[in-house]
Amino acid sequence: MTTTAYDENNIFAKILRGEIPSHRVYEDENALVIMDAMPQAPGHTLVIPKAPSRNLLDADPAVLSKVIPIVQKIANAVQEAFEADGVFVCQFNEPAAGQTVFHLHFHVIPRHDGIPLKPHSGQMEDGAILSANAEKIRAEL
Amino acid sequence: MTTTAYDENNIFAKILRGEIPSHRVYEDENALVIMDAMPQAPGHTLVIPKAPSRNLLDADPAVLSKVIPIVQKIANAVQEAFEADGVFVCQFNEPAAGQTVFHLHFHVIPRHDGIPLKPHSGQMEDGAILSANAEKIRAEL
Repeated sequence: MTTTAYDENNIFAKILRGEIPSHRVYEDENALVIMDAMPQAPGHTLVIPKAPSRNLLDADPAVLSKVIPIVQKIANAVQEAFEADGVFVCQFNEPAAGQTVFHLHFHVIPRHDGIPLKPHSGQMEDGAILSANAEKIRAEL
Repeated sequence: MTTTAYDENNIFAKILRGEIPSHRVYEDENALVIMDAMPQAPGHTLVIPKAPSRNLLDADPAVLSKVIPIVQKIANAVQEAFEADGVFVCQFNEPAAGQTVFHLHFHVIPRHDGIPLKPHSGQMEDGAILSANAEKIRAEL
């Protein structure tokens, strides 16, 4: 695999800089948490470290150590907010693994028994629904 | 969702105690890394924290912070060992999300362009192949 440099103009870098809008759930010095605009299930959330890295492979391990407790916090919050039966956490590195935005992020997806996930990077969700879902999760934090 | 207590007799607890065999890749004070016996792709590896927790939801955040750099180390190693085009990292919480063994673990799976993953918890791999794959990954650590 060819290693590719970090692109400062990826969509999550722009969201982190506030250049384009997002449905924000949580923010601290280490990470921004937003709703996935093309959710695989209601409540599909993204944990985005503020430090730039293309994905997990080139990330600063110290950043990872600070961000994984936030992934956990969000996993528990989405479980409560959506009365989920389970929570799927995943992280894609490079296009062959499904990565579409080249800034490290963790997907946190509520799961319900018998309801399959929608495809990754599928259909854009209505903004009002994303906003309401962000509020539901914030209420559990 | 009902929270269920940690079961000391889950298969990964038995592997951690050395009561049943596994194909070991790496071990330190915080985690054991083994080959998944039912790989979704060649090189499918599991990072298992030594501290007991049912999954991510009830884990000690300090344990997560120590284990995620190991997940990263293994992701880079499997990418090299299998000349992978990408690496998929995932973690299942509760049966609705696909969890089948109730001790926290992270899946690290090499991906190659155009080759779909086999099903989770599918077919048992030949021990000699798992052993050879463990050796390939160790060579990159």
